[in-house]
Amino acid sequence: MDVTGSAAPLNPSECQRVGQVLARVGDKWTVMVISELGDGSQRFNELRRNVPGVSQRMLTLTLKNLERDGLVTRTVTPSVPPRVDYALTDLGRSMLVPVRALGQWAQAHIPQMDAARERYDRIALEGSILDR
Amino acid sequence: MDVTGSAAPLNPSECQRVGQVLARVGDKWTVMVISELGDGSQRFNELRRNVPGVSQRMLTLTLKNLERDGLVTRTVTPSVPPRVDYALTDLGRSMLVPVRALGQWAQAHIPQMDAARERYDRIALEGSILDR
Repeated sequence: MDVTGSAAPLNPSECQRVGQVLARVGDKWTVMVISELGDGSQRFNELRRNVPGVSQRMLTLTLKNLERDGLVTRTVTPSVPPRVDYALTDLGRSMLVPVRALGQWAQAHIPQMDAARERYDRIALEGSILDR
Repeated sequence: MDVTGSAAPLNPSECQRVGQVLARVGDKWTVMVISELGDGSQRFNELRRNVPGVSQRMLTLTLKNLERDGLVTRTVTPSVPPRVDYALTDLGRSMLVPVRALGQWAQAHIPQMDAARERYDRIALEGSILDR
C-alpha cells in the first residue's frame, strides 16, 4: 500500500512504521501540545493551563514522548524553584504544517461526521428495537 | 489554543473535539484503511491482505467506526456467499489529502525521530547506570 501518495510504494515494514508515527502524532494531547508550542516555548504549568482537560500525568507522559522523538526540547534553569521550559525543535516545527492541515480538515468536517454518527446510531438503535 | 492556524481560536470544547477527531484519524489502522481505499473500493478480505498486520477483529472495528463517521460506505451484494464492498465517501476522500500530507511528513522524518529516540534511550540508560 502507499500511505503517502509518493511514487515509491511502501513495503510492509515501512508502512507499519509510518502508521506508528501517525498513531503517535494523531494522539489528542500530542497534537494539542505541538500546536500550543507553535506560538513559542512554555513552562509546564502554562501548558497545563493552555491544554484544556489534560492531567498532570498525561502532560508529563506526552512531553516525555515528544522529547524522546526529538520534537520538543526540555530546558531546566537551576533557579529556586527550578524552571523548566519546553519548546519545539526544528523537527517539531516542521510537523506543525501537516498537523494544522489535519486540524483544519477536522474542524471543517466535524459537523458532517457528527451528523453521520447520529444517523448511524439511530439506525442501529431502530434495528435493535425491531430485532426484539 | 488554536489547533488549526485559522483566524478564530477554538474554544476549549471545540479544541477537545478536534483532538478527538485527530485521535481517531491518526489511528494506525484508520490511516492505512483510508489510504488503501483511496485507490478504489475493496472487499473485506482484500483489505485484510493489503493492510499488513491487521487482525480480523481490528479491521472489523476500524471499518465500523469509519462507516459510523460517514467516511466509508459498506455495500452488501446478496450473492451466495454475500459480497461486502467498502469504499470511501466524498467525506472520506476529502480526508485523503491531509492524511497523505501527514504520511509524507512521517515517512520523510522517521529516520530523524528514530535517531533522536536512540540517543534519548542511550542517555537515559547511562543515567540509570550512574544512579546506581
